[in-house]
Amino acid sequence: MPSIDVCFSPELLPLSDLRGKVAVIVDILRASSTIVTALGEGISHVFPVATLPECAALGQEQGCLTAAERDGVPAAGFDLGNSPFSFLTDGRPHAGRALAISTTNGTTALRRSHAAAHIVAGAFLNLSAVAGFIRSQQRDVLVVCAGWKGQFCLEDTVFAGALAARLQHGFDISSSDATLAALHLWQQAQADLPAYLLQSAHVRRLNSLEASQDFEFCMQIDTYAHVLPVWENDRLVLAQGL
Amino acid sequence: MPSIDVCFSPELLPLSDLRGKVAVIVDILRASSTIVTALGEGISHVFPVATLPECAALGQEQGCLTAAERDGVPAAGFDLGNSPFSFLTDGRPHAGRALAISTTNGTTALRRSHAAAHIVAGAFLNLSAVAGFIRSQQRDVLVVCAGWKGQFCLEDTVFAGALAARLQHGFDISSSDATLAALHLWQQAQADLPAYLLQSAHVRRLNSLEASQDFEFCMQIDTYAHVLPVWENDRLVLAQGL
Repeated sequence: MPSIDVCFSPELLPLSDLRGKVAVIVDILRASSTIVTALGEGISHVFPVATLPECAALGQEQGCLTAAERDGVPAAGFDLGNSPFSFLTDGRPHAGRALAISTTNGTTALRRSHAAAHIVAGAFLNLSAVAGFIRSQQRDVLVVCAGWKGQFCLEDTVFAGALAARLQHGFDISSSDATLAALHLWQQAQADLPAYLLQSAHVRRLNSLEASQDFEFCMQIDTYAHVLPVWENDRLVLAQGL
Repeated sequence: MPSIDVCFSPELLPLSDLRGKVAVIVDILRASSTIVTALGEGISHVFPVATLPECAALGQEQGCLTAAERDGVPAAGFDLGNSPFSFLTDGRPHAGRALAISTTNGTTALRRSHAAAHIVAGAFLNLSAVAGFIRSQQRDVLVVCAGWKGQFCLEDTVFAGALAARLQHGFDISSSDATLAALHLWQQAQADLPAYLLQSAHVRRLNSLEASQDFEFCMQIDTYAHVLPVWENDRLVLAQGL
């Protein structure tokens, strides 16, 4: 029976052998939620990058739409901020465009997962898409929490637990203490996910920087139940046939 | 208000600044439990070492009692195995002796915590001693889980949660997502700690290698409520005046 393991920080990835596995990259607040939303709203593909200069270069050289923030507000010289609401404008003005988005924690997690057989992006917004893909693959899974500057964070962990709960029949979720812990935290959180996560000082800080509508949006389950960002060559694209 | 943070793996210690803090080294199964028992039963001081040759050298050069295991049985050429029951023999034949004990995960955690103002060893067996010391210090605390080969493990995390529960009045336990998670896991575990931890495949494996009495013994709270191993120079000694 294939297994589900959880890695609480990209700093711990060197301990894991990702070959042959599915890696699920999770950065609930907000990179993976925003990328799911962007692809769900018609963006053609996404380049996640770590720095503002890389983001700007993709805008200039490849004509990408650029999304970047500093201290919770859109960075000067970029088209959009990192909010999922950047892609929810009436009339979908960005549909068909490629997107370069700056995300430090998410990009680190993605780059360090390159050995995996498949890399997908997971969020509450596309929980069913991720679970469905994993069931179809029947491979071992590592959920890679992007964390916050390398540290454990609650929202990514609770997502890992939600995914384990969906997959516990058919996958081994008890060989990894990290998966058990994530599942137990999800079981505490699920009755009121936003209230549970607002216990986190880090979440409250993000919530005060941004319009709190971002946080509420990222807590929604399966708004994009058929949107699966998958890594192909150098970009995230929408998986076909889900 | 001083804070309590939890580090789930020695691999994450480079992210933490330990200067001025109390580091609590935790390796419930079994190094910290065995060291607490040894000092509680009259051992004069303990040298934790990573390898069997280091352990043997301390026996030969300094006349230490030596404790070492390989694959769950006492290693050839050493006085004792790593079980706390090695020190619970009638008549306390080892009282007054110095001990060298081989523990890979625990030694890594200890060595990487050297910058802390104080380093102590924590286990369920001496929970009150650790909590009392922390209250007396009024410094920030980092609970360093030894983990298992660098990976998250449930028993060390649940201990961190038990400690946070003891200290939640008077210490900030909500600035760290890791501390919140540990506390929530402890709240699930506390009604039946052994049953909770036996969900872990890693715990069950240890439990089948060893006499299960080791596991049951390490689950006891405050058997050594006044025994606090503190790091001084190159060894763990019994803190005086608790």
